[in-house]
Amino acid sequence: MRQPMNERETVRFVREILGSPGPDVLVPIGDDSTEFRFPSPDVLLTVDSLYEGVHFDLDICGLSDVGYRAATAGISDIAAMGGEPLCALLSIAFSRAPTRAEVLELLGGVREVTVVNGCELVGGDVCRSPGGLALTVTVAGSPPEGGPVLRGGAREGDLVGMTGYAGDSAAGLFILQRGDGDAGERFPGLVGAHLRPKPRVLAGKILAGTGVTAMEDVSDGIAPDICDICSESGLGCEIQADLIPLSDKLRELAAETSVDPLRWALSGGEDYELLFTAPPGRFEGILETLRRLEIPASRIGVMVAGEECRMVIAEGETVKLEGMGYEHFA
Amino acid sequence: MRQPMNERETVRFVREILGSPGPDVLVPIGDDSTEFRFPSPDVLLTVDSLYEGVHFDLDICGLSDVGYRAATAGISDIAAMGGEPLCALLSIAFSRAPTRAEVLELLGGVREVTVVNGCELVGGDVCRSPGGLALTVTVAGSPPEGGPVLRGGAREGDLVGMTGYAGDSAAGLFILQRGDGDAGERFPGLVGAHLRPKPRVLAGKILAGTGVTAMEDVSDGIAPDICDICSESGLGCEIQADLIPLSDKLRELAAETSVDPLRWALSGGEDYELLFTAPPGRFEGILETLRRLEIPASRIGVMVAGEECRMVIAEGETVKLEGMGYEHFA
Repeated sequence: MRQPMNERETVRFVREILGSPGPDVLVPIGDDSTEFRFPSPDVLLTVDSLYEGVHFDLDICGLSDVGYRAATAGISDIAAMGGEPLCALLSIAFSRAPTRAEVLELLGGVREVTVVNGCELVGGDVCRSPGGLALTVTVAGSPPEGGPVLRGGAREGDLVGMTGYAGDSAAGLFILQRGDGDAGERFPGLVGAHLRPKPRVLAGKILAGTGVTAMEDVSDGIAPDICDICSESGLGCEIQADLIPLSDKLRELAAETSVDPLRWALSGGEDYELLFTAPPGRFEGILETLRRLEIPASRIGVMVAGEECRMVIAEGETVKLEGMGYEHFA
Repeated sequence: MRQPMNERETVRFVREILGSPGPDVLVPIGDDSTEFRFPSPDVLLTVDSLYEGVHFDLDICGLSDVGYRAATAGISDIAAMGGEPLCALLSIAFSRAPTRAEVLELLGGVREVTVVNGCELVGGDVCRSPGGLALTVTVAGSPPEGGPVLRGGAREGDLVGMTGYAGDSAAGLFILQRGDGDAGERFPGLVGAHLRPKPRVLAGKILAGTGVTAMEDVSDGIAPDICDICSESGLGCEIQADLIPLSDKLRELAAETSVDPLRWALSGGEDYELLFTAPPGRFEGILETLRRLEIPASRIGVMVAGEECRMVIAEGETVKLEGMGYEHFA
């Protein structure tokens, strides 16, 4: 039986779920504001919103997945600075009064990511939305010792690398959108990459420690995200199509469905892997450091003078990367 | 002519509008996260979302009003702790690609509040929404020296006070919803209270300095908000109907339209005045301090043992305050 809660009951239930706050939470959820004690007065802040019908579709993912993905989006932004995510605030808008089971599922997904990453859910807001479920996650954290790694620090000649594999999340979404249960069973890793993407917090901190020159998470697809690094650094880039790390499963699905796997990798987004640049002399050592921690990492290209972001697809044949990728108002 | 911008153009335009960041913005808008330097590692954080069709109606208010109200909601949460709002992040979802004029108007409204209150707009997020305009404002600030004033600190016998007048915002909304242009012209103060509510930052800091025992901003109406203070403090209260501060204009409109003005005051919300409690011995001094700064303030009741929140409407005649006020899932 549906037993919906009103606004105040929902907030009370969220407080119950959160339980006793950690020692850095000076004022927990339930007051006008939350108070949190950071290790230093320099604080990283980021906010991400997810809307039903735009960022997710409840026909192909559960409330817990939505919560998980919202938390990952925020935490990944801190990871992309080399920072440590420390606390999160969650604003939830439900299109109708939620049940305890629904709130539990949504928050469960959020906490799967926050707890593992040492990020405490400290507060938020509950209200009604006119058009489906909406979530906004604010994440605050501390920068790495040497300061955060920005998008604009790449230098000409720096090599471009990335953690993990590209396009798995988009390929998982492709399977889910086709409603292909058989493919879903044969490619659980791809579906999981879409429904349960993991932010690269450890990799981000390690990369910051190695002195990478620029970093960004892959939230919109390699193409638009490397273009950000280029434009912020006042440079162009040359990415090698054959160096883009594609998982075996992605290649298998692409072959079966006659889809160009690079489409998923370049403009799929939501992989939450880290793109980074570093001088050639230090690059192999950085990849080695990551691999020792079992974090896959590879070189995919080089930063060049000019402002063109190109991908080399064959000897002497290049395509422009600008304009690829998810565009909200396309 | 409508010249809509895409997502990246919108972000670029927002950066242009914001201009050069202040000295405490270590990493401005345009990277994965923002970095801000607070005066101390103890930081107040709050988040508020406003949805078209739920919190506002673009038929009766402009984009600039929406931005203004969203910023006030967040800053008021910091004011209600006695804190100093220092920076804000804005997540905006447009139902279709926005024009420069639209973004300028919305951000103009936000900045009218943030700039005046010394709160810097440092970052955010732009995306598409499935159901009308939506705004989420995250505000971070620093607590007052003696620590933030909580809702749960009231003691039995403490008097209850509030700044300003109650219900003006709801009365303004009433005028706007009736589309009564004549009333709008005769009651600009009421309409302004709804479209341009001012957060009580200075009053909050002063109240925190005087050692008030509990504080909360009036966002949902006096009734639900005093009930919060009661439940968090483990007490009840007795509010005097005849002490609730109503503006002359509110009384005038109420008389003309045969509306009980207390309805606006008790359950109207969005006045963003501050409710507070303090021991009787210190109470008059506190009101005097506020009035010297031209901040109207008055006593409206007393905290009592038990858990009943009542309002005395005549000798021996009381009504319950619980259950009044805006409820999102009513």
